[in-house]
Amino acid sequence: RPFKLLVLPGDGIGPEIIRETLRVVDWARNAGLRIELSEGLAGGASIDAVGAPIAEDVVEQALASDAVLFGAVGGPKWDHLPRAQRPEMGILRLRQALDLYANLRPAVCFDELLDASALKPDLIRGLDILIVREATAGVYFSLPRANEIGPDGQRRAYDTQAYTEAEIARVCRTAFELARTRQRRVCSVDKANVMETGALWRTVATEVAAGYPDVELSHMYADNCAMQLVRRPDQFDVIVTDNLFGDILSDAAAALTGSLGLLPSASLSGLGQGGRSRGLYEPIHGSAPDIAGQGVANPIAAILSFALCLRWSFDRADLADAVERAVRHVVSSGVRTPDIAEAGVAPVSTLQMTDAVLAALDAQ
Amino acid sequence: RPFKLLVLPGDGIGPEIIRETLRVVDWARNAGLRIELSEGLAGGASIDAVGAPIAEDVVEQALASDAVLFGAVGGPKWDHLPRAQRPEMGILRLRQALDLYANLRPAVCFDELLDASALKPDLIRGLDILIVREATAGVYFSLPRANEIGPDGQRRAYDTQAYTEAEIARVCRTAFELARTRQRRVCSVDKANVMETGALWRTVATEVAAGYPDVELSHMYADNCAMQLVRRPDQFDVIVTDNLFGDILSDAAAALTGSLGLLPSASLSGLGQGGRSRGLYEPIHGSAPDIAGQGVANPIAAILSFALCLRWSFDRADLADAVERAVRHVVSSGVRTPDIAEAGVAPVSTLQMTDAVLAALDAQ
Ligand SMILES: CC(C)[C@H](C(=O)O)[C@@H](O)C(=O)O
Ligand SMILES: CC(C)[C@H](C(=O)O)[C@@H](O)C(=O)O
Repeated sequence: RPFKLLVLPGDGIGPEIIRETLRVVDWARNAGLRIELSEGLAGGASIDAVGAPIAEDVVEQALASDAVLFGAVGGPKWDHLPRAQRPEMGILRLRQALDLYANLRPAVCFDELLDASALKPDLIRGLDILIVREATAGVYFSLPRANEIGPDGQRRAYDTQAYTEAEIARVCRTAFELARTRQRRVCSVDKANVMETGALWRTVATEVAAGYPDVELSHMYADNCAMQLVRRPDQFDVIVTDNLFGDILSDAAAALTGSLGLLPSASLSGLGQGGRSRGLYEPIHGSAPDIAGQGVANPIAAILSFALCLRWSFDRADLADAVERAVRHVVSSGVRTPDIAEAGVAPVSTLQMTDAVLAALDAQ
Repeated sequence: RPFKLLVLPGDGIGPEIIRETLRVVDWARNAGLRIELSEGLAGGASIDAVGAPIAEDVVEQALASDAVLFGAVGGPKWDHLPRAQRPEMGILRLRQALDLYANLRPAVCFDELLDASALKPDLIRGLDILIVREATAGVYFSLPRANEIGPDGQRRAYDTQAYTEAEIARVCRTAFELARTRQRRVCSVDKANVMETGALWRTVATEVAAGYPDVELSHMYADNCAMQLVRRPDQFDVIVTDNLFGDILSDAAAALTGSLGLLPSASLSGLGQGGRSRGLYEPIHGSAPDIAGQGVANPIAAILSFALCLRWSFDRADLADAVERAVRHVVSSGVRTPDIAEAGVAPVSTLQMTDAVLAALDAQ
């Protein structure tokens, strides 16, 4: 049967980068992969059309799909809305409904863009860190939580961060499985010195490691990890951590590379037989409302997100490799959208960048 | 009456850097400041002597003091202990008992040490960020919290992060007061898009800002802040944030400067009349057990911590300025302990570095 792919372009530059990425989807079809496409609304676009950041029938559709290709959501138009009704809730709802507990965020440096990094070139040349972030539990979802008036008339808010051993173990297993395809080193990050969930995290990570004697496990406190990422990022291979630490540390790691606008992400519900999983794929960059509609957004992060989809949900590492090689080739040959253009380089459009990627694919 | 200063050297290099810092305390006395000194145990040293990371009579003594000068705590010897009995609990207990709700962490770049930074020099030359971290509430202290067996026999842990409007407002006021002595810009950092405490944080920060029309307030999500600190650190003047985000972001910011081993911190219970507050002062670096006892640790962070004590608790900005100038002079003139020595430079000892600072003070 064909793979079912649900496309959710979202807001801002989402629609334009997804439109171009669909040309790479077409390329994969022409290469013999059977894909059944459907499209839906998410984020602000969904709020405007149906009054919610994602409609329940879109969630149903996602549940019936093998993969979701997601653009980006949010923008000033919806910033005044209360938290529960905002565009971001669309993506949080999907993560939980699809049980996408492992959010993979590669922080990879494109050496051609070394100059764009804030870090000294020697520290990040060839950098390749994979952050595996738990994404369906922790403080993002645990109850109770409230914003209320206390008995003394004072406002008071609280959140809960809860984790079960099963929630920790499964995301750690994903990290260890992935480490086996890489340098076989996992660094588990927590605040075990301060948090109860951190203490359980450390215990369970250690237990999971026992099943992977070929992979090295280390532990680090989250504050020290933030420091070490800046000082010596190349010490890391795979980092596994909770939802909140993962949010912050993966953004720091991505920023280090200087290749921020090019980085994809994958949200998986575990690596099953043959490594295949239901997945949601999205660029780590946002909806960039300031440049939306101008046709200048960089489609590479979205295209590389589709490559991760080929790899993890469609079980076609060969096609994924081809797309990644094509992108590397295009970046090496100096094709630049405005976000990555060096001074003196005439930038290309979203469309032209995609043309270049497709040409490189055809030439392989 | 003389100011009361309680000295808690702690573990590892703590005792050696504090011993040298006491020579600068003597200098301040000779300059006419009346200080009544006492000394106590904290951290592993206290665990070994009395079985707890801090004894209640030491806490009482701290409560009766104007300021605490703290070295560093922790080491492999106590790593096996359960969380509640570990050396770090000594500092957490003091923060709460003394109501030291504002933890000030300057991330300042010593331009002479620019080469030691991971960042490109242009991005951090002259960098001067002040992070004001809430330090007596949030996930570090809120209840309920537990590590337990659920009804299904699974282990489960949870933590609570709670904030009242008063807890948020007072640390924001500290940040705004301090911004008035600087560039008058405060960036308040939260996860208002995900956390209830974040939403309240943002509301209260905005309310406090109304009382400071001369200070500019901006808001940023914690993940974006981690990213922006790496990409363009000079956009920040004062950052105010909660306990957990402050822990992580201040370590990232300190790492950026490349001057990590030189940075002091202050924990205040608010800036009262004349800007004076009870305070606890400590280097941000740790106890460095690997080099302890060798007499080579860098005393500068501890000496600069005492300078902050002169400024905030002893109301002697003039003496604080003198110490900071002396340290700058010594660093400029190339005196280096091993941690900051460039290749080819013969490093000096803890004692010699302090000699140099005292000589610079005498020469002023
Ligand atoms: C949009 C927001 C809710 C989300 C998060 O915090 O998880 C984003 O920052 C991310 O990392 O995907
Ligand atoms: C030692 C530890 C409990 C402490 C913290 O997390 O607050 C430390 O990291 C700090 O930042 O002072």
